Amino acid sequence: MSQSCGESEAMRGSDLGQMATLLRILCADMVEHAGSGHPGMPMGMADVATTLFAKHFLFDPDHPEWVGRDRFILSSGHGSALAYALLHLVGQPAMTLDELKRLRRKGSLTPGHPEFGHTPGIECTTGPLGQGFATAVGMAISEKKLRAELGDAAAGHRIFVMAGDGCLMEGINHEAAALAGHLRLDNLVVFFDDNAISIDGPVSIASSEDVLARFAAYGWDGTAIDGHDVEAIDRAIEQAKKNARPTLIACRTQIGRGAPTKAGSAGIHGSPLGRDELAAMREALGWRLPPFAFPPAIVAQWRGVGHRGRAERQAWLGRIAEQPQSTRDRIDQIERRTPPRPAAMFRTIREQTLHAAVPKATRVSSKDVLERLVPACPWLLGGSADLSGSNGTRVDAHRDFSADDPSGNYLRYGIREHAMAAAMNGIALAGAYTPYGGTFLVFSDYCRPAIRLAALMRLRVIYVFTHDSIGLGEDGPTHQPIEHLASLRLIPGLRLFRPADAVETAECWELALDHEGPSVLALSRQDLPPLRRDLDMNRSARGGYVVIAASGKPDVTFLATGSEVHLAVEARSILARHGIEAQVVSIPCLELLDQHDPHGIDALIGPDAGLRVAIEAGSVQPWRHLVGEHGILCGIDCFGESASARELFEGFGLTAPSIAQRILAHPCFQELTP
Amino acid sequence: MSQSCGESEAMRGSDLGQMATLLRILCADMVEHAGSGHPGMPMGMADVATTLFAKHFLFDPDHPEWVGRDRFILSSGHGSALAYALLHLVGQPAMTLDELKRLRRKGSLTPGHPEFGHTPGIECTTGPLGQGFATAVGMAISEKKLRAELGDAAAGHRIFVMAGDGCLMEGINHEAAALAGHLRLDNLVVFFDDNAISIDGPVSIASSEDVLARFAAYGWDGTAIDGHDVEAIDRAIEQAKKNARPTLIACRTQIGRGAPTKAGSAGIHGSPLGRDELAAMREALGWRLPPFAFPPAIVAQWRGVGHRGRAERQAWLGRIAEQPQSTRDRIDQIERRTPPRPAAMFRTIREQTLHAAVPKATRVSSKDVLERLVPACPWLLGGSADLSGSNGTRVDAHRDFSADDPSGNYLRYGIREHAMAAAMNGIALAGAYTPYGGTFLVFSDYCRPAIRLAALMRLRVIYVFTHDSIGLGEDGPTHQPIEHLASLRLIPGLRLFRPADAVETAECWELALDHEGPSVLALSRQDLPPLRRDLDMNRSARGGYVVIAASGKPDVTFLATGSEVHLAVEARSILARHGIEAQVVSIPCLELLDQHDPHGIDALIGPDAGLRVAIEAGSVQPWRHLVGEHGILCGIDCFGESASARELFEGFGLTAPSIAQRILAHPCFQELTP
Repeated sequence: MSQSCGESEAMRGSDLGQMATLLRILCADMVEHAGSGHPGMPMGMADVATTLFAKHFLFDPDHPEWVGRDRFILSSGHGSALAYALLHLVGQPAMTLDELKRLRRKGSLTPGHPEFGHTPGIECTTGPLGQGFATAVGMAISEKKLRAELGDAAAGHRIFVMAGDGCLMEGINHEAAALAGHLRLDNLVVFFDDNAISIDGPVSIASSEDVLARFAAYGWDGTAIDGHDVEAIDRAIEQAKKNARPTLIACRTQIGRGAPTKAGSAGIHGSPLGRDELAAMREALGWRLPPFAFPPAIVAQWRGVGHRGRAERQAWLGRIAEQPQSTRDRIDQIERRTPPRPAAMFRTIREQTLHAAVPKATRVSSKDVLERLVPACPWLLGGSADLSGSNGTRVDAHRDFSADDPSGNYLRYGIREHAMAAAMNGIALAGAYTPYGGTFLVFSDYCRPAIRLAALMRLRVIYVFTHDSIGLGEDGPTHQPIEHLASLRLIPGLRLFRPADAVETAECWELALDHEGPSVLALSRQDLPPLRRDLDMNRSARGGYVVIAASGKPDVTFLATGSEVHLAVEARSILARHGIEAQVVSIPCLELLDQHDPHGIDALIGPDAGLRVAIEAGSVQPWRHLVGEHGILCGIDCFGESASARELFEGFGLTAPSIAQRILAHPCFQELTP
Repeated sequence: MSQSCGESEAMRGSDLGQMATLLRILCADMVEHAGSGHPGMPMGMADVATTLFAKHFLFDPDHPEWVGRDRFILSSGHGSALAYALLHLVGQPAMTLDELKRLRRKGSLTPGHPEFGHTPGIECTTGPLGQGFATAVGMAISEKKLRAELGDAAAGHRIFVMAGDGCLMEGINHEAAALAGHLRLDNLVVFFDDNAISIDGPVSIASSEDVLARFAAYGWDGTAIDGHDVEAIDRAIEQAKKNARPTLIACRTQIGRGAPTKAGSAGIHGSPLGRDELAAMREALGWRLPPFAFPPAIVAQWRGVGHRGRAERQAWLGRIAEQPQSTRDRIDQIERRTPPRPAAMFRTIREQTLHAAVPKATRVSSKDVLERLVPACPWLLGGSADLSGSNGTRVDAHRDFSADDPSGNYLRYGIREHAMAAAMNGIALAGAYTPYGGTFLVFSDYCRPAIRLAALMRLRVIYVFTHDSIGLGEDGPTHQPIEHLASLRLIPGLRLFRPADAVETAECWELALDHEGPSVLALSRQDLPPLRRDLDMNRSARGGYVVIAASGKPDVTFLATGSEVHLAVEARSILARHGIEAQVVSIPCLELLDQHDPHGIDALIGPDAGLRVAIEAGSVQPWRHLVGEHGILCGIDCFGESASARELFEGFGLTAPSIAQRILAHPCFQELTP
């Protein structure tokens, strides 16, 4: 467990004040040097950051991968200068003074907002407000579970978050805070930068909520302190470490603290102070050094903070050396970010799937996969936003993760899709568990900002999005995805899988677990017949494949996904009766197809593929260029309707006879028909 | 102001109990008849609904457009049977018994979830949880403003909402409730269906928050009552009508109340009761009538509720007759849903725009338009999610709408993008004001579920989304939209406008205000030079137009939007030096182009358009089919980076020389270059 160490406790308030002044001036100088950026938040929170790092924060500047470290999440990501300055001052080797001078410059380690995977020591990409907060909840969940798995000696770190008014106005913080309170995440401490200023002016023009009372309603502990009183900060952190629930520390701060005329005003949020204000600040603080030059004694104190951290890690290593080999291997696996890849298991799973082949919804096939996967993969952390039964995400081997049993492997996220997606990012970032979570595909819209961040951070997060088309039927247009398949495919680095049967579903699960980035599994509510009979290889791995070849040169090539592959198969039979030869291509993952074949789909279907017909019960946009100018698009570009699935497919012309008829009516077959 | 009327007050608790029993059984029978649906919520909330409608709710079943009516928003939209049964029982002519029997059937007035514009008397399309609640906040804002505009005699209605655990877990309710508390919307009453059951089981598996305490923290009044005690319900509504703040009435209910074995269980949420359970319920309640047959005395009481409403409207009309003609005209305009169309004004605006032509960001050009529009259009209700200055949404003629001054015409939504979008839906639904609201384009993801509903409801809502590309520069990939232009274009019925200069910006504003549906204005942060010199017509109205023609047959046709049109113009000059003729097509609205020309872009650019080159600083997907197999796509299909706008455009090959070079290297020009 992290705790104040003797050396740091000896650090007096006046020392901390000087260290904070240095931090404050450094951040102001960085933004000034950059010519743009956000000095207000770093200057306002410098005292909190200094006290946290100097007296409590557990980390080793040389080992940002250390599993036992505390996490620092700057949910107010625009205050990135604060994070970078801290990393530099504690002696993180990569964060040189030159990098600080390159704030917001192309290719620097100091981009405008903190970026995970880009800058060592940055735990999470933040910027879109509220996301860091909710991601931290996932990290806290992961730590609780890891502690249950490995014991206090190996885990026991804390998640510290800085969040501003913006983060706490965003809806996602409500979802995440309610979840954290319910799960009694005592390892989570949030500093609320309560500076009463937003971009438009005083927060009071838009908000009058009692934040502490709100968090108390979620079951959090909380306190309000002067965010510039280092002793009060210290005491509040001490208390937070003892609390049995998550803690909100409302730090009353002055934005841009230290700037003689601009502090406390909205103007300092997002603009450099300017030369005059900086000079006046130096004058007022009695600071004689030019930008990027520091008093050696204060720097030494900051470096001492880093040394204390190194010593903490050494002590931790000593304790770990006494742990069983399995614990040490597990820690190694987490620190190397090498989750197990259950490839061998999937061979068996696919075989079992094939033998049990009966018509079933792909959401059920997905559940079948999980029934086999979950017991064998303790590193898999499932969950759903209150649709466990509908999504097929919860299987026999699951036990709920809860405040009383953090060893559980299933999360009841509640009706909180956005927090679920962000918490999954946190779980993935923590490195110990691979998260998946379910909701209906149409509600991917609620998750979208967090999905985008998963893609940006290249996190292995799996979304089980069921009820993937008008096939869900009577619930109507509010619940029927139309544009969602197409719009998810647009997110760079995200893979959208839409399997057509049980075998493809197993293949897609395998690929999702192997992808270094997020994946969507779009799954049907309605039953689908078995399509595949072969198991030699994961045929979905190339994104698409010919599932039924034409005998000879095809007159028609069907391109389809998911439930609509079966329409293609049926339409092919109808065409055959008219003497038209067709091949059927199933494309469970369009992105993989693009990736394997930069020249589009041609290599797969051959140069003489005939008339191209795309079928997908959603926006036609992804298919327009694939079928070409003369091809046929069978999709839906308006909202759905409340009716039975059968009537809807009929109404939208998505039946085999309708499709066959459109093909037969195409100019290139006009001579064939009477 | 709405109030209990003498007639209804005479209605005794036992009468209400019988009316509620009828309602409860009717809803259960409807879902049974449909074979699927959600009986639990209607049965649980039947007592609340009966008490509200019988004793308080102000409406006229024959005039669902009556501006003075109270609004009933079923935020738990899956309980649609409740809304339909109420409409039938109070005598709404369209809602016949046959329609109740057609629940969830194709083409019925009783779809799976309530749909505005489809069913008379349904105020809002609901289903995606939390949306109805937040939309109601917009309606309450509109009523407050209307009351300030027209006085108590003309406005003074209330917004009543039913919301369940799901609605209150969703993040959007936090944003909306905080805003409602801040604005002291005393005309808003929310019934929380506190049945402690969610789809996965007891709410306690996922939540332990104190909802009333949370709402108190927002500045709401609140009370907890037995949701089956009609007298307690009545008293709570009486109190809510007196409160000076919005009111949450937590109704402790039993889901599926009345079902002998299934009441209080998760199983009754979303499945018909079944024949046996229904029979047992009839037995237990002493109800002898078959489905869809009612005791005449109870029906008469329900019809009496409708008659009371008709009388209330007549009384209201009497009061309105004494109002000035301008008030009566305004009411007529609202009830007919015919907002003014400022077409004439736009001619002047475009002229002024042209004369003031200097390089400027389209977000600034948009502000210029608003500076002229806002003073002349009191029906325009602006706002922003804390980025007023950046979005250019607030102009000189604005005063903040606030608790103390509800006559204001600008909303400080706070850092609450999702609630802003949903509240704008409510403002548009109320019919008196046309809302627009601003944030950064990248945060359209936060608004997306509400944008989709605006499109589904065909509401005139305008999103001012600025910082529309990597052109925003140093804030980096979290703030740089990539997939957003393409993914917004996928939402059916939404128009995305991306103007290239000040004239186009004015044209796009005109088109957005004329569109019966939602529109996005995607605007640049960076300055753009003037492009257009002509004013004869709104050339953006067809979606796209040739802004610079080729002299003769074009060798190259550029298709571009927004800031990239200027790249095309520059690249055209470079090509000219190589003897290559190019035309430049500006496409401020791709959807309009598609609509006007079903055969794609061909009619616009001519049959011999040469090599097609699309330029847009975002996903290339929308352009792939437009440039054809051999065309050139200049866009961005990966995440952006923190750097200056200039470096980014260079890095992504989006400069005129880079583009010209790609064109010159194209096979069709190879013979031209050395």
